[in-house]
Amino acid sequence: MLSVLPSSSYKGTRDFYPDDSILDTYDFRKQNYIFETWKKTLTKRGFVQYDSSIIENAQIYIEKSGEELGSTQLYSFLDKGGRLVALRPEMTPSLARLVANKFRELKFPLRWFSIPNCFRYERPQKGRLREHWQLNVDIIGLLAGEVELELLILLGDLFKDFGADKRHFKIMYNHRQVLDNWLKSKNLFLQKELIYKVLDNWYKLDIKEKTEILSESLESSEIQTVLNLGNHEPQAFLEYQKIAKDFREFDFLKNLDKLQPDLEYEFSPTIIRGIAYYTGLVLEAFDKNPQNSRALFGGGRYDNLLELFGKSAPAIGFGWGDVTMHEFLSGHNLYPNFNENLQKVGILAVSEESLIKIFKTIIPNLIQAGKIYEINYEYSRSENKRRQTLNKKGCKEIILV
Amino acid sequence: MLSVLPSSSYKGTRDFYPDDSILDTYDFRKQNYIFETWKKTLTKRGFVQYDSSIIENAQIYIEKSGEELGSTQLYSFLDKGGRLVALRPEMTPSLARLVANKFRELKFPLRWFSIPNCFRYERPQKGRLREHWQLNVDIIGLLAGEVELELLILLGDLFKDFGADKRHFKIMYNHRQVLDNWLKSKNLFLQKELIYKVLDNWYKLDIKEKTEILSESLESSEIQTVLNLGNHEPQAFLEYQKIAKDFREFDFLKNLDKLQPDLEYEFSPTIIRGIAYYTGLVLEAFDKNPQNSRALFGGGRYDNLLELFGKSAPAIGFGWGDVTMHEFLSGHNLYPNFNENLQKVGILAVSEESLIKIFKTIIPNLIQAGKIYEINYEYSRSENKRRQTLNKKGCKEIILV
Repeated sequence: MLSVLPSSSYKGTRDFYPDDSILDTYDFRKQNYIFETWKKTLTKRGFVQYDSSIIENAQIYIEKSGEELGSTQLYSFLDKGGRLVALRPEMTPSLARLVANKFRELKFPLRWFSIPNCFRYERPQKGRLREHWQLNVDIIGLLAGEVELELLILLGDLFKDFGADKRHFKIMYNHRQVLDNWLKSKNLFLQKELIYKVLDNWYKLDIKEKTEILSESLESSEIQTVLNLGNHEPQAFLEYQKIAKDFREFDFLKNLDKLQPDLEYEFSPTIIRGIAYYTGLVLEAFDKNPQNSRALFGGGRYDNLLELFGKSAPAIGFGWGDVTMHEFLSGHNLYPNFNENLQKVGILAVSEESLIKIFKTIIPNLIQAGKIYEINYEYSRSENKRRQTLNKKGCKEIILV
Repeated sequence: MLSVLPSSSYKGTRDFYPDDSILDTYDFRKQNYIFETWKKTLTKRGFVQYDSSIIENAQIYIEKSGEELGSTQLYSFLDKGGRLVALRPEMTPSLARLVANKFRELKFPLRWFSIPNCFRYERPQKGRLREHWQLNVDIIGLLAGEVELELLILLGDLFKDFGADKRHFKIMYNHRQVLDNWLKSKNLFLQKELIYKVLDNWYKLDIKEKTEILSESLESSEIQTVLNLGNHEPQAFLEYQKIAKDFREFDFLKNLDKLQPDLEYEFSPTIIRGIAYYTGLVLEAFDKNPQNSRALFGGGRYDNLLELFGKSAPAIGFGWGDVTMHEFLSGHNLYPNFNENLQKVGILAVSEESLIKIFKTIIPNLIQAGKIYEINYEYSRSENKRRQTLNKKGCKEIILV
């Protein structure tokens, strides 16, 4: 009658099966575990959750940055009314829109989070799919200072609640204005774009490649100055730290090691996060598993974003993808054993007449006792076969009714 | 610098703000309350959750039905690779795809649920938006019989866990094969489409409109036969019930009133749910609030859907939208008071030096005690003003550190 369609998911997207006995991959329970742990950590700290539609006016992203998202990677299309819309590639512009839209009603500072799915049109690869989910945590309405410390502590807590510590990851941060002031002090500000590019890819490029890129408009002594900084050469790094002292947030960040003694934080000029957008602190976390060397998340201060919508408020936040998080948790074997505490009870109905008793008494009692159940109605099969079926579905205890 | 963009959400979609002090509308907490209540009710009964991407091959929907979805309402577009894709208008075809894709690995019967967002391209109106969320509950792998009872009891439990009972809603059901057999017994099967159309809109059409539509190909005595059935005229309805006795599920459904004594179930030939797709039981629930007369959910048995993907398994399920559910809960005042148990503690930092104590001792203790907190860093403002700020954010208790 009907033609047969392929049953695979759309390229670059995932299906989330309920039971990881099917596939040894990222199933619904794992995703749910990540989301619920994030929610719990944040909710306990007074953060509140928001959401919006995945469809947005494509102009938001085109205005926001001239980066690759603007054209090739943006998942944009014309709706049937001829509007250019996009499936959101990230949440921050939507957040800015929501805040601008109710700017007078909202009570700042906002400590908000969301776990949206986001889309990029690109060739799917490990750690990057067309659709992924991303925790977004933002604090809006506080100028640089205490809140930078608060956010970096929170990031550590988010890891700790998954059972992770400095054996598994490190958090690295930098400050865009510190870097810019350093560039100015070295008379290298006009070469900013090139130097940003090299620092941004510091651990991907070898020394020859770095030199090659920089030599495009730097002299050899200037190149050495940049290499010294990137390599955390003591004298160069000391100068850099001295510039940082001009920024109030560093009064607080110096306490990080005291406040999160089990974790590793590193101040490093090699954290950039693209050329646009960020205006102060920038941060990334790295998995120490050599098989999973991507950044686990990224973020920073972005004091100008609300201007897209004609408003102004200081803001700081980060995004943390579920794909890299899954790789982090499975790489370090940090997932709990989901089946350990599952007490599933099999109910073997012995005849049609059993049903009233099952629904009227047995099931309400099991629910009362917090036990999950599975009913089997196959009267015509042998009891043995039926027990096997229920065992396979995870029932250890079986009752005949 | 940048041009200012409008901050409203895309037409027919909603923003979900975290705090309903902003807007007296459907905020994140309300949506979350609905979702969490659904999850709890289902998880306790052994149902497991799945998910998939919102993007699907558009062909799935075009093949599935020749209904309005196929062309005008389907939210379809060409991706950058030239594939015709769609934002899913409903979850069932995706479910069928997932099940077909792992058909041999899965252990039937499956009791699955999902809470996806779904899209339709249409003029937004009350109770129908371009994007809505929809609980989908399905049982796959069981032939008609006991499971029809199980599902109708579950539907009642889903309402009861929101504090609803027969004062607020009723569940109506019908059976497509019963209706078809009745049509055959009356020699009216060739006029099926017309009669379905009238029964499907029974409470929207007046007697004149019904007669007018039916008279297109029915004689006046035949029209009277149909009207009698739709009106539950005792003799006609008795005949209809007699036909139902041929179907095994009615052996079980007769126990519904006994098993859900607080609820109202009604067997009615006026429940149709479109012409295609369903193969046995069909069901809908109606809000008794006259202001909200839409069906709250709909569903039924669909034994043929997996054939789209070259597999075969009996299935039954339903979908329940968050927009109508919100209207139901607010119409009957069934939402809990979310702020009642919120114990928010305000932390007034008295100086920069307080921060270490706040992050090292105060906050971990508050988290330990399950208290949500809000920090205020504004040393330069008066204590009174700062207390007011914290009060406005919902802090009753305030501590100075």
